[in-house]
Amino acid sequence: MCPQLQSKIPVAVLGATGMVGQRFIELLHDHPWFKLAGLAASDHHGGRPYAEAARWRIPDSEMPASVASLPVVACRPEALPDVKIVFSALPGDIAGDIELAFARAGVAVFSNAKNHRMGADVPLLIPEVNADHASAIIQQRKQRGWSGSIITNANCCATPLVMALKPLQKAFGLSKVLVTTMQAISGAGYPGLPAYDILDNVIPYIATEEEKLEIETRKMLGAWQEGQGFVDAPIVVSAHCNRVPTREGHLECVSIALEKDASPEEVIATWENYVPESQQLKLPSAPEHALIYRHEVDRPQTLRDRDAGDGMSVTLGRLRSCSILTHKFVVLGHNTIRGAAGGSVLNAELCVEKGLI
Amino acid sequence: MCPQLQSKIPVAVLGATGMVGQRFIELLHDHPWFKLAGLAASDHHGGRPYAEAARWRIPDSEMPASVASLPVVACRPEALPDVKIVFSALPGDIAGDIELAFARAGVAVFSNAKNHRMGADVPLLIPEVNADHASAIIQQRKQRGWSGSIITNANCCATPLVMALKPLQKAFGLSKVLVTTMQAISGAGYPGLPAYDILDNVIPYIATEEEKLEIETRKMLGAWQEGQGFVDAPIVVSAHCNRVPTREGHLECVSIALEKDASPEEVIATWENYVPESQQLKLPSAPEHALIYRHEVDRPQTLRDRDAGDGMSVTLGRLRSCSILTHKFVVLGHNTIRGAAGGSVLNAELCVEKGLI
Amino acid sequence: MCPQLQSKIPVAVLGATGMVGQRFIELLHDHPWFKLAGLAASDHHGGRPYAEAARWRIPDSEMPASVASLPVVACRPEALPDVKIVFSALPGDIAGDIELAFARAGVAVFSNAKNHRMGADVPLLIPEVNADHASAIIQQRKQRGWSGSIITNANCCATPLVMALKPLQKAFGLSKVLVTTMQAISGAGYPGLPAYDILDNVIPYIATEEEKLEIETRKMLGAWQEGQGFVDAPIVVSAHCNRVPTREGHLECVSIALEKDASPEEVIATWENYVPESQQLKLPSAPEHALIYRHEVDRPQTLRDRDAGDGMSVTLGRLRSCSILTHKFVVLGHNTIRGAAGGSVLNAELCVEKGLI
Amino acid sequence: MCPQLQSKIPVAVLGATGMVGQRFIELLHDHPWFKLAGLAASDHHGGRPYAEAARWRIPDSEMPASVASLPVVACRPEALPDVKIVFSALPGDIAGDIELAFARAGVAVFSNAKNHRMGADVPLLIPEVNADHASAIIQQRKQRGWSGSIITNANCCATPLVMALKPLQKAFGLSKVLVTTMQAISGAGYPGLPAYDILDNVIPYIATEEEKLEIETRKMLGAWQEGQGFVDAPIVVSAHCNRVPTREGHLECVSIALEKDASPEEVIATWENYVPESQQLKLPSAPEHALIYRHEVDRPQTLRDRDAGDGMSVTLGRLRSCSILTHKFVVLGHNTIRGAAGGSVLNAELCVEKGLI
Repeated sequence: MCPQLQSKIPVAVLGATGMVGQRFIELLHDHPWFKLAGLAASDHHGGRPYAEAARWRIPDSEMPASVASLPVVACRPEALPDVKIVFSALPGDIAGDIELAFARAGVAVFSNAKNHRMGADVPLLIPEVNADHASAIIQQRKQRGWSGSIITNANCCATPLVMALKPLQKAFGLSKVLVTTMQAISGAGYPGLPAYDILDNVIPYIATEEEKLEIETRKMLGAWQEGQGFVDAPIVVSAHCNRVPTREGHLECVSIALEKDASPEEVIATWENYVPESQQLKLPSAPEHALIYRHEVDRPQTLRDRDAGDGMSVTLGRLRSCSILTHKFVVLGHNTIRGAAGGSVLNAELCVEKGLI
Repeated sequence: MCPQLQSKIPVAVLGATGMVGQRFIELLHDHPWFKLAGLAASDHHGGRPYAEAARWRIPDSEMPASVASLPVVACRPEALPDVKIVFSALPGDIAGDIELAFARAGVAVFSNAKNHRMGADVPLLIPEVNADHASAIIQQRKQRGWSGSIITNANCCATPLVMALKPLQKAFGLSKVLVTTMQAISGAGYPGLPAYDILDNVIPYIATEEEKLEIETRKMLGAWQEGQGFVDAPIVVSAHCNRVPTREGHLECVSIALEKDASPEEVIATWENYVPESQQLKLPSAPEHALIYRHEVDRPQTLRDRDAGDGMSVTLGRLRSCSILTHKFVVLGHNTIRGAAGGSVLNAELCVEKGLI
Repeated sequence: MCPQLQSKIPVAVLGATGMVGQRFIELLHDHPWFKLAGLAASDHHGGRPYAEAARWRIPDSEMPASVASLPVVACRPEALPDVKIVFSALPGDIAGDIELAFARAGVAVFSNAKNHRMGADVPLLIPEVNADHASAIIQQRKQRGWSGSIITNANCCATPLVMALKPLQKAFGLSKVLVTTMQAISGAGYPGLPAYDILDNVIPYIATEEEKLEIETRKMLGAWQEGQGFVDAPIVVSAHCNRVPTREGHLECVSIALEKDASPEEVIATWENYVPESQQLKLPSAPEHALIYRHEVDRPQTLRDRDAGDGMSVTLGRLRSCSILTHKFVVLGHNTIRGAAGGSVLNAELCVEKGLI
Repeated sequence: MCPQLQSKIPVAVLGATGMVGQRFIELLHDHPWFKLAGLAASDHHGGRPYAEAARWRIPDSEMPASVASLPVVACRPEALPDVKIVFSALPGDIAGDIELAFARAGVAVFSNAKNHRMGADVPLLIPEVNADHASAIIQQRKQRGWSGSIITNANCCATPLVMALKPLQKAFGLSKVLVTTMQAISGAGYPGLPAYDILDNVIPYIATEEEKLEIETRKMLGAWQEGQGFVDAPIVVSAHCNRVPTREGHLECVSIALEKDASPEEVIATWENYVPESQQLKLPSAPEHALIYRHEVDRPQTLRDRDAGDGMSVTLGRLRSCSILTHKFVVLGHNTIRGAAGGSVLNAELCVEKGLI
């Protein structure tokens, strides 16, 4: 148990019936610090039990028995009176206002939605990357006059990319990132893509994804300056996003320009020696290794590496020179765990551990 | 009929039982200029009929009735005495010497194998790109003292890429190309990849593919200078090659640096107005449109666009600015037709039309 | 041109924006007897041009230029005043009443919907199987007092099954059919199955499909008796229906009990010698061979055989003894062509040729 | 620890580099009763360490560290001198003689190969089905004059089928079984099927599979009679076997004839109440539930249910009346775990527990 805690913190999931909502349930239903006390959905079925309101979609698990009888309530703070933290898996068209309502009501909102990610006082947080950004919520509370807070996690592609880049930025300086993604179908939620559109196909377009990848990367690799706000990292990012017929796992081919000379061995060593605060703190959802570098010539592979560290590790490989920028490599992350629900849960753990909420 | 011809030219396929060999048969068995008169394979079965020696692998066609009874002979010139042209779909470990033997015996060899592609007097030919390179075979014959010739076509990824780049190089100058490929399983030949390795997977590595893509692009976009030889184009190319679970069609995300300013509209117009010599000559295998630009936001797609122009057109889309280089786009080509057998057949048509063989 | 016709018959498609609707358009836009004069959809967009109202979903074709500008009107007879025939690809929840309205208005309705299939005076028609059932529409018109008519085609699984069974029933008598289907995703329409549900999966259930397969088979193999109506064939049918991750083509494993002794050779010969009326009449959409028997040990295969006869032939294979019933075999049909749109078009051709409409 | 044991029994895997061999390693490397002391392969690499001799193929696990340095030796008893049990994952073309050599040398051979399955004194064993057949090895030793033994497990399709059938045979009598399988690609071993053959395809044929399914079912559901040998159950079995594009898990649609009347509820209750000896004995590899009946209308599904009980449970569903036989249902088993390596390990546990080896 976290030393800060006498008892488990009651938490709820907003958007509990969707794909990411179910990943939240999977990660929270027997969490050592959190007690999953409420479930809410936009289509809330008037409080019907979760087992009636939802079908379980995650193929490699069953609906946890402890949530089957939980009522699915409306996404309003009054409907979840005793909850201290909500995890939001709401879709972007409704997440914004609902999350604000919870924050105003004093709840800490850990959101996977895109709406508040770029907010001037909202942390876009990955513990392994920018744990110090979390303290922005102190200013957020002060400025907005609420006792709750909104903390977001990044787009499912941006997360593994930024985790790969952070140690290199720190060690060598980083000026350019050119990334091509090959993203799994689960990234589109449920029902997501019709099978007829993607079986035996690659679709070289995902709406707004390239833009998110570019701006979120700069914010996360930038600085939080007390009193001033977020300052983007001066990094140019260019993205090509593609959907491919895989179930889970976003694989990305990346070319980068580092500012200092760095041999391939030095880059790999930088990754292999990277032990960020979240791993030092031994947060419950932090994988033993945030980054895993595979030395085989053909790794990481989507199927083989997506579940590394229970889906919370990011796997790297094929680091070599790039004749146009300076280096190139491959990075893979599990999109609905590390890139979505798992990332949010880890963010909440960090904030609890730091006494921020 | 080609004005140069009184009667059809007798041709043969080397490596007739493999995936590309079968594509050759499909394209040649009722060709207007060529008569498919012989089939050879390394494992030649002592002259057994093709229908007994081979299983037909191409799913959307049947073995042509006219080849079923053709004997499968050894890959030696003596076994194919009346043939003027051979199309080689041989694997790289044996193609080199066999193709030399045919060229020495006076046969024009159109090869899909990698062995001679980078030869100092061997054209790496795409009629839409570098038709003038074909005349290198005159020097080849003189220097080597043979009456045959070897003409190669490019790697299946390099072909659509170079077709997309050529008109831009010509119009605006081109200095850098950063490409990430998503290649279909048929690119690995037959049997190629085990299903267990690729279903629900992306493999970010294809042996020697990135190197080929880089060097072949420079040769094809370079110049043939009479008396001097080939001069590579001064273009830096960096490639990431991936295998994805699609049947046919290599899709590539490309970022480029053009030397002159060019608005997106100008780039697109350059592609749309590109009518190379092969299309003007109306070669039998030349598609009506060498390049097709799709204006939809999510095209080209592997499944939907690979068969454009009977697999001989290259489809482009998503041209936009790149914040790191100057422009970025998506290109798609059919790997076993345009990128292999169809490319070779078109090369032969060009050489016949030009009176080079 | 059909001898009955002075000019092409104006026809329309109801449900023109869905998967089967697009197959209808593909088959009708340059049909020798029919002129595609109207498009209707339940969500009709107030007459907007088809190119604006719909995205083309069929991957191996483009939206025909001739339909791009056709307005998409409401599914009401008044909106399609000059049309003599409508092809209905409407979903079952609305098809029933709309089709009745057209029939009352004097239009011949060829429907792919399930609603009227089991009607006591409605033919469930496959020209190769029960062409004589078509004359039920004479009684239908008389009884219902309308000048139009409703003619249905069968479920996409029932169609190839019944085509396989009919010649055997005729030659040897047939008492039992036990069938297990492996059905393609396109059978669920568009958007149909989420990719997340079916990639790397088999779903052993398709709602109401087994029931349809059982009752439709008995009706089609039964008799139309003037004055009396349809008499079901006394055949017991038991079905298992499964969804598998293939794009097109329903493959079925069938065990049957024939009433007379029949050697495997006799059964195969019965299929190979079957030339039904539709083939004798050379109807435009009738494939040269209604039934194709493949002698290879591992055919038919979904991928390799679904397009036989442009998707209108049914492919058979693996006929052998069954130790429980008498014989077993494999049958395959293209579900959105032969089992849907193509079947309806062929039905219309038969009725025109016979002077029934 | 098993009461019979003072220390772990040293065991080895034959055919350790293939797909099933790797499943054996996965199940044995930290087994509570067995110590994995040796690895052998036909292509044995002269004793090179496993990590050099083999690539790990199972995507959801890594090569266990404890086997990486084990030498891969030849498949001869002399090369594995201290081993008491070998698990054989050898291919059928060599398994027969090698397994005999080990049995003669006093080793208990638990084989997944087909060669000895139908031997007159060789148990074809599934603990949940025919645990009493194990005692055939006493007679086997006496007759053959060796101190070792050969115990086989069944074909990967026969295993889940027979597990479903056994309790029904016992409760109601069973006379007929008509089964259609949809089998995963991993059933073909590694490399197994080329991706080009199976992506977007169903292949309705697997060599010798239907025959195995028919004869093995009768042997396993039959009796072992001391002194007399095996007596086949008088059950008629007819099989259709298909390969579908799934990674793991064989799904089967089954129609059966029971001899006594049984309501659907009684059949389901019989399955749900079935607790065979292996579960009572709490053998280490026995799943808590040998049979799991899913009441959802669309289960079992390959993707969702194959890993039930760590791949050792068999999942059932859709029990309903069959209009031709008496009942029909769906059954699913994990083919490389329950249907191969896991089944063999469980057999060894049973024989140890019973003091037979």
